[in-house]
Amino acid sequence: MPKVGIVMGSDSDMKVMGKAADMLEKFGIDYEMTIISAHREPDVFYEYAKSAEAKDFKVIIAGAGMAAHLPGMCAAIFPMPVIGIPMSGKNLEGVDALYSIVQMPPGIPVATVAIDGGANAAILAAKILATSDPELLQKLKDYTAEMKETVQKKAEKLEKIGHKEYIKQM
Amino acid sequence: MPKVGIVMGSDSDMKVMGKAADMLEKFGIDYEMTIISAHREPDVFYEYAKSAEAKDFKVIIAGAGMAAHLPGMCAAIFPMPVIGIPMSGKNLEGVDALYSIVQMPPGIPVATVAIDGGANAAILAAKILATSDPELLQKLKDYTAEMKETVQKKAEKLEKIGHKEYIKQM
Amino acid sequence: MPKVGIVMGSDSDMKVMGKAADMLEKFGIDYEMTIISAHREPDVFYEYAKSAEAKDFKVIIAGAGMAAHLPGMCAAIFPMPVIGIPMSGKNLEGVDALYSIVQMPPGIPVATVAIDGGANAAILAAKILATSDPELLQKLKDYTAEMKETVQKKAEKLEKIGHKEYIKQM
Amino acid sequence: MPKVGIVMGSDSDMKVMGKAADMLEKFGIDYEMTIISAHREPDVFYEYAKSAEAKDFKVIIAGAGMAAHLPGMCAAIFPMPVIGIPMSGKNLEGVDALYSIVQMPPGIPVATVAIDGGANAAILAAKILATSDPELLQKLKDYTAEMKETVQKKAEKLEKIGHKEYIKQM
Amino acid sequence: MPKVGIVMGSDSDMKVMGKAADMLEKFGIDYEMTIISAHREPDVFYEYAKSAEAKDFKVIIAGAGMAAHLPGMCAAIFPMPVIGIPMSGKNLEGVDALYSIVQMPPGIPVATVAIDGGANAAILAAKILATSDPELLQKLKDYTAEMKETVQKKAEKLEKIGHKEYIKQM
Amino acid sequence: MPKVGIVMGSDSDMKVMGKAADMLEKFGIDYEMTIISAHREPDVFYEYAKSAEAKDFKVIIAGAGMAAHLPGMCAAIFPMPVIGIPMSGKNLEGVDALYSIVQMPPGIPVATVAIDGGANAAILAAKILATSDPELLQKLKDYTAEMKETVQKKAEKLEKIGHKEYIKQM
Amino acid sequence: MPKVGIVMGSDSDMKVMGKAADMLEKFGIDYEMTIISAHREPDVFYEYAKSAEAKDFKVIIAGAGMAAHLPGMCAAIFPMPVIGIPMSGKNLEGVDALYSIVQMPPGIPVATVAIDGGANAAILAAKILATSDPELLQKLKDYTAEMKETVQKKAEKLEKIGHKEYIKQM
Amino acid sequence: MPKVGIVMGSDSDMKVMGKAADMLEKFGIDYEMTIISAHREPDVFYEYAKSAEAKDFKVIIAGAGMAAHLPGMCAAIFPMPVIGIPMSGKNLEGVDALYSIVQMPPGIPVATVAIDGGANAAILAAKILATSDPELLQKLKDYTAEMKETVQKKAEKLEKIGHKEYIKQM
Repeated sequence: MPKVGIVMGSDSDMKVMGKAADMLEKFGIDYEMTIISAHREPDVFYEYAKSAEAKDFKVIIAGAGMAAHLPGMCAAIFPMPVIGIPMSGKNLEGVDALYSIVQMPPGIPVATVAIDGGANAAILAAKILATSDPELLQKLKDYTAEMKETVQKKAEKLEKIGHKEYIKQM
Repeated sequence: MPKVGIVMGSDSDMKVMGKAADMLEKFGIDYEMTIISAHREPDVFYEYAKSAEAKDFKVIIAGAGMAAHLPGMCAAIFPMPVIGIPMSGKNLEGVDALYSIVQMPPGIPVATVAIDGGANAAILAAKILATSDPELLQKLKDYTAEMKETVQKKAEKLEKIGHKEYIKQM
Repeated sequence: MPKVGIVMGSDSDMKVMGKAADMLEKFGIDYEMTIISAHREPDVFYEYAKSAEAKDFKVIIAGAGMAAHLPGMCAAIFPMPVIGIPMSGKNLEGVDALYSIVQMPPGIPVATVAIDGGANAAILAAKILATSDPELLQKLKDYTAEMKETVQKKAEKLEKIGHKEYIKQM
Repeated sequence: MPKVGIVMGSDSDMKVMGKAADMLEKFGIDYEMTIISAHREPDVFYEYAKSAEAKDFKVIIAGAGMAAHLPGMCAAIFPMPVIGIPMSGKNLEGVDALYSIVQMPPGIPVATVAIDGGANAAILAAKILATSDPELLQKLKDYTAEMKETVQKKAEKLEKIGHKEYIKQM
Repeated sequence: MPKVGIVMGSDSDMKVMGKAADMLEKFGIDYEMTIISAHREPDVFYEYAKSAEAKDFKVIIAGAGMAAHLPGMCAAIFPMPVIGIPMSGKNLEGVDALYSIVQMPPGIPVATVAIDGGANAAILAAKILATSDPELLQKLKDYTAEMKETVQKKAEKLEKIGHKEYIKQM
Repeated sequence: MPKVGIVMGSDSDMKVMGKAADMLEKFGIDYEMTIISAHREPDVFYEYAKSAEAKDFKVIIAGAGMAAHLPGMCAAIFPMPVIGIPMSGKNLEGVDALYSIVQMPPGIPVATVAIDGGANAAILAAKILATSDPELLQKLKDYTAEMKETVQKKAEKLEKIGHKEYIKQM
Repeated sequence: MPKVGIVMGSDSDMKVMGKAADMLEKFGIDYEMTIISAHREPDVFYEYAKSAEAKDFKVIIAGAGMAAHLPGMCAAIFPMPVIGIPMSGKNLEGVDALYSIVQMPPGIPVATVAIDGGANAAILAAKILATSDPELLQKLKDYTAEMKETVQKKAEKLEKIGHKEYIKQM
Repeated sequence: MPKVGIVMGSDSDMKVMGKAADMLEKFGIDYEMTIISAHREPDVFYEYAKSAEAKDFKVIIAGAGMAAHLPGMCAAIFPMPVIGIPMSGKNLEGVDALYSIVQMPPGIPVATVAIDGGANAAILAAKILATSDPELLQKLKDYTAEMKETVQKKAEKLEKIGHKEYIKQM
């Protein structure tokens, strides 16, 4: 039974949202992923948001670009956390979506992550679920250790070969 | 039977929205004005937007601030024009609301006016209704003449008393 | 007899304006499309704007970039709705055009749509005309249903093949 | 035993952070509130962030202005969710803090809420805790109902007295 | 016979435009000052711009706020320099007006000065006229000397009384 | 004897500045073009700005990017008009240069044109010189007529072949 | 013999620059403070910048608003560090000054601090001088300890009286 | 013994940071270069910042993108100057990093240079070290002379071949 719903407003958001899905898989978290446009099919959207709790979702990750209403409208209906991912588009580099998602009025927060921040949305979902799941919490700590190791290997490589060679190999 | 629905997300928008109402009255256009939060009462909002056509609304004027979803969500449901007014708030001077309203994705336009542009929203509604109402069209032309006269009187005053005196009287 | 005038400030706007024209054709709305620069040929522009009502235009769609004055100047002369499309250019991603179009002073609104929002301008024009044209209103509802179906097919495809395969096929 | 840590970078953030505390109290959630500057006392900060899990915190709400590093640095150390509140300051209206908080690099998300969004940070914390606390979930639903009622009363008042009188009473 | 036309879109611009007039007076340059709205009275505006050369204007100083079209439309018609002053307004701090004035398309420049830069517009007009008026050129040099002296007196005062006392006297 | 000095801060500005030179040639205006960095060779710059009047320059066109000080520093020394061209660079799309050029303090205006507005800077220089040169004024009017004709030809082409074919030929 | 020169473009910057002076006094660093406008008295400015090394200045702190050229022009002439303070003004909240100061081209850096960051400029100057002055380095460490203590006292106060009482006392 | 520490948050910053290293080499300044993520390995970072003084670092150059906390956190711990380089990224062109670095609160300055300003960071470090190193000061003066010569050669080339040929050769 999926604990996380991933929903995007358009399939043009798929690459970013795919990173969220991949990261959830890495943490072994079941998810359900779909495309729903709050604007093009408001009734489908309402049904989705209203039934999310019954489907046992604990978190919804919603990504949208431009005048991004999907995350905020999810947060208006779903009583548990909604994580919003602002998508960059052809113009404005995602600032339009960022403002449309983060600047929610008092009462209806959306947990906003960075522009195009697909992976971070999934990690935040994992952190939320980890508040009541010690096993998942441990996986998050392991992931932190893994990130640390990755950076340290790069630092060692830099120390070894110097920046001129490092840049050549990029 | 009101032809224009005026809806705002919060009563903090009342002063700007009141200007829209006053301007509609000036043109003799019947309207219905209410407060509905798409975020705090999504079901009330849905009902409102879905029943708007049956109530014979031809235009909806929707004002909202911050992550302003009300105009766009109206436009997703109501098949005729929705005019959006971005409200300035404590921070960001209305740029957040402007982006949340004007940057609608393909398929669901919102006719956006200036930040805090209450009067302009009503004039735009009148222009829309005037496409099939010659009497209203004439009123709009009269209003244009009136605006012209107002500016010309100010120009005459300036010519007469000079800018130093004009500034003193401001 | 065309009901909608489409006018752009430069032929560099043609691709975006072409989408407006295509969408009007889809709805079976007659239009007249031309290039007029308010800056480079102000007298031609004035003549155009003044004669628009006599030509039976009900709506003008005006697109322009940079210091985009064309839509606002149309709105100063034409008594019915003017829809403004801000064009993105080499710099500033269309924010200059957006501000030049949407921030109209009290009395002269321009119905502004998204940056590069050609299709949306046409849909808004159709919505305006539909306030007095039940047949067109029905076409708009059909278009909404069509958009819904398109999104649902994508959702079904995603459910069927998963996001990894979906991304590969993009 | 407090489940939520509230931390601010400076006591100039107290009014906004106080709203977060008040809202947690409303939901009956225990919290611990303090002032720690990641810049002025980095060792105190590190100790705080490292010991937060042992103190049984499930969520940290961190508010900061300007180059707001406190939320992100908390998120680098604390393995469960960190909610960031960007504070508006003398200049830039909180955009500096918003970017410093929301634009976290891959791996270390901060759940960002609106600029000066104290109440929303607490509601988001409650939503996070509600993923494993049905009683709290019910309180959140009650709060949603309460918000709905508040808006509806305002709408009734507007219907009753009209916008002119409503504005006078504001 | 006035050599400079000063025109503003609204009498709310009078304080800034008054500084331009005062500065022209200081340089002994004849000017004519009026209020004309390109949007509210386009025909009056056209007449003004077209007759400016016949009135022997050499420069037009045009100030406007929001979607500021007045300077650019003047520049489209008047063949000599148009100086544009972007006005700050209730929102956006004049960025909307700045973009609407400075971002003119190729072929129709507006000589743009700082937001609310009334005095600078007049000095620029004087500099333009000074290209063929040695006496005026000398006055500009005298003004430069005067500005220098003013700053130097302040520097002397600071040296004498120190910054603490200087601040007290402000 | 050149009447216009063209100066740029770096040869990376050459393409834009070249358009200014080409346009001056079109109007038959003598110019002198050079590269001087106010930052990298301040003494060379000072000498240039101080000797400009003696060289009989009537206008200086100065282009610079990033923290663009060249136009403003020219205006501090040269007593006649300085036209500033903000250059777009790798980041910020020229907004940094625009602010650095247009926001001059009271007393020292720079006549600012659009970002990357090389041609417009030259046309503005021509307009300035035309205040005392009837022959040049006529050339400017001819140029305006030429621009008009160019747009009209495009409009005719559009009318003839339609937008679909027009786009294909672009 | 002063080691730090403090220079501002206008006495309207005095309150912010006074904070820099006060902080230098706290660290026992000799300074010389003056007002010089790079725009209004370029020759005075040049003389100042050229003679700064001979006067044994090791650091210049330069503050300016709007198109702030003073810090960058100092950095073009003075071979040791120049610290720039962007001043907020009537419009744009100091973003114009920030871009004019920080976005220096390759070769001529300005060490930029926060908008209106008078105290920080002085602390940075102290840190620079401390690279060769162990006694001053110790004073900086003491100052850090002092800041830490101040925050801790506030935290203790908050713990003692609670946020409601704390806010009342603000 | 290295006097300058170069640290970056991610190896994606290597190209810009490499320019800093190259410039330090040009001035004969020993440096140590590494990759440390304040977010992904906060304990490694703390150790690095705390031990920097003991390693005899006099200056740290820290580069980071997005919510760039590395420079500010270094400045919170290291008592001598920290130079911050804001990195441009996929979105926002480095404005997020600029604000996250330059807008430090009172007490903890970061000497911020231009977005992607690798070379300038190194020159600023050299200028700082030159406050107590006459030999290095002379090298900086030589570099200034070198920059001057480079520009002058370009100016000569332009004078010789003209801008049309110059552009062709670019």
